[in-house]
Amino acid sequence: IMENKKTAALQAHEEWHGKIETLVRSEVNNKAELAVAYTPGVAEPCISIKNDPEEAYRYTRKWNTVCVLSDGSAVLGLGNLGGLAGLPVMEGKSVLFKTFGNVDAFPIVLSTQNTEEIIATAKAIAPSFGGINLEDISAPRCFEIERRLKEELDIPVFHDDQHGTAIVVLAGLINALKVVHKTVAECKVVLNGPGAAGTAICKLLLSYGFDNIILCDEHGTLYNSREHMDWAKTELASLTNKENLVGSLKDAIKGADIFIGVSVKNALCSEDVATMNRDAIVFAMANPAPEIMPEDARRGGAAVVATGRSDYPNQINNVLAFPGIFRGAFDARAKAITEEMKLAAAEAIASLITEENLSADCIIPDPFDKRVAAVVAEAVYNTAKGK
Amino acid sequence: IMENKKTAALQAHEEWHGKIETLVRSEVNNKAELAVAYTPGVAEPCISIKNDPEEAYRYTRKWNTVCVLSDGSAVLGLGNLGGLAGLPVMEGKSVLFKTFGNVDAFPIVLSTQNTEEIIATAKAIAPSFGGINLEDISAPRCFEIERRLKEELDIPVFHDDQHGTAIVVLAGLINALKVVHKTVAECKVVLNGPGAAGTAICKLLLSYGFDNIILCDEHGTLYNSREHMDWAKTELASLTNKENLVGSLKDAIKGADIFIGVSVKNALCSEDVATMNRDAIVFAMANPAPEIMPEDARRGGAAVVATGRSDYPNQINNVLAFPGIFRGAFDARAKAITEEMKLAAAEAIASLITEENLSADCIIPDPFDKRVAAVVAEAVYNTAKGK
Repeated sequence: IMENKKTAALQAHEEWHGKIETLVRSEVNNKAELAVAYTPGVAEPCISIKNDPEEAYRYTRKWNTVCVLSDGSAVLGLGNLGGLAGLPVMEGKSVLFKTFGNVDAFPIVLSTQNTEEIIATAKAIAPSFGGINLEDISAPRCFEIERRLKEELDIPVFHDDQHGTAIVVLAGLINALKVVHKTVAECKVVLNGPGAAGTAICKLLLSYGFDNIILCDEHGTLYNSREHMDWAKTELASLTNKENLVGSLKDAIKGADIFIGVSVKNALCSEDVATMNRDAIVFAMANPAPEIMPEDARRGGAAVVATGRSDYPNQINNVLAFPGIFRGAFDARAKAITEEMKLAAAEAIASLITEENLSADCIIPDPFDKRVAAVVAEAVYNTAKGK
Repeated sequence: IMENKKTAALQAHEEWHGKIETLVRSEVNNKAELAVAYTPGVAEPCISIKNDPEEAYRYTRKWNTVCVLSDGSAVLGLGNLGGLAGLPVMEGKSVLFKTFGNVDAFPIVLSTQNTEEIIATAKAIAPSFGGINLEDISAPRCFEIERRLKEELDIPVFHDDQHGTAIVVLAGLINALKVVHKTVAECKVVLNGPGAAGTAICKLLLSYGFDNIILCDEHGTLYNSREHMDWAKTELASLTNKENLVGSLKDAIKGADIFIGVSVKNALCSEDVATMNRDAIVFAMANPAPEIMPEDARRGGAAVVATGRSDYPNQINNVLAFPGIFRGAFDARAKAITEEMKLAAAEAIASLITEENLSADCIIPDPFDKRVAAVVAEAVYNTAKGK
């Protein structure tokens, strides 16, 4: 961003001096009120919760409060800044939770980046929260941390960089396919960047029914028994690239119907897009500079282009998903965010683009479309309740 | 408390459905605002903090946010309820921090009561906070936890059950001595209940200049090499009871000028008070029922009586101290709450009772006296700044 925008961002943050604060719901203006909200009255809900832990959802803010938890190991596109330096992002995320989902959120940034210490800390502080949103934790540690916390805690645990992104990408793809009149079954998908987001996108697309997916990293396609693969990539290779194609991204993309980039700028050029199948769909979501600029993708023949940017059509923005996801999960008092809830959320987001509105430049709702969080919450709630 | 008050307290908590919530300071109503409070603008404060961690105090809410941390091992007078069941108290404490000190507070209740795990957790989450208020953690673990966190963290760590109580007791004693025209040097002090609060009261009184103090627990006086003493009581015995008096509370209290109770109801009777020196001072602070009811203490000859109750004069209430303590420490960006700050806070609280107002029934300001937090904050601030 331009220098003057950088300065403006710093000034705004200095003036805010914190993007969230505590709001008191129980006024304490006199001794009588103090005696209810604090001693001796407060003993009663304490005893009730001691006798039945579920009563915490009735007498405290646990029911509506999410922990935005980060070790700052993968902050935005900036890399490993550490927990403290990630705090402005986590405060911002908390603002979005409250603004879009009426979910109370508190940022917890950590002084450790050790996997076991992060897990132990999250478990230790979990009683205060109704859910945990993991944020900006680098792969592959984020997979282990999320898996373990989901196993060991009885509140929803959701790594938004993975699943929020995956849900919104799927929502966009559902509508993009309508634009180009293609089916899930016929599409070849190439995904560049099998990190936190890429992995979750891949798995959610598999759940949705895509079964011809090839992943690429900086060494080219992922295939069984390739070198330079950690356990996470080894698992992904086993789930994708059925023909075990060995080659570069440029090799893989030939004849593909869909390109999904969660990698780095300039990973793709117009000539690459030109080798894709007719009516190609290009989701170039590297931030702030995409894998290929939309005009270049179009020039290569892409029929639908989406990015992470707000200054182009079809912005893939996680804020379309996470506030409604937690709103619905909290209202249903769900113990976890399941694969079914994620699919339902993606379909709910996609459903807001009606047949009349649908076009190559309109496959996904605007982040400020007030209807989004409500329909996502409803879909997640109904799925949680088995409706 | 009466059944109808218990029911009312539960109903109020159910209606509040949480006594605090998140308040957004940085509105995000459109894409331009989103681009400042979140991506891409938020990258700028992140980078600034990465380059200089102190900038976190400039660009985030860290500067004004205290963690109200508890393992629920000693909740009010209710005992070991566990972290979750302590959450209503910690939310209430957060309400008081905000209401009285404009300090943002967030309750963290723990799923562990292991000393090392509590220390590790507090250290892990510390980057989000400007300070940590330990609450309702049982003795003697609370001493070790506080000591270690003070050593290992560079933000103020304050165990309110200890030091908040000690500060307000000292404030009350300063004025009680004026009422009975006695000096610190001439007073014999007997303190019953050397737990978290009792230990801190004892140490602060020693700092202030009291040097004839005898502590008692359920086995009688604490003296060197007595049985039934943990390391904390052993230390206290070495600091007090210079004549190594062996005996019961009833033995110790004979001829005493000041009785301080942080123990259990009915620990004292009128006849015991009658054995004290003339113009005895009795602080009977067991909750909700004091060691001796004020009318009974008076009948035994006490000149000044204080309790923890709001329905009698001279309520010793921690809310007189902790909001102003953290307000002053945060404003001064103090790295710790020192002994000097505590003494200054006690003197500041005492100073609000003027010579004209001073009486046996008016030794301490009302908890709702709006001046209190401000003068405490100023005293703490000035002490931190070396003024």
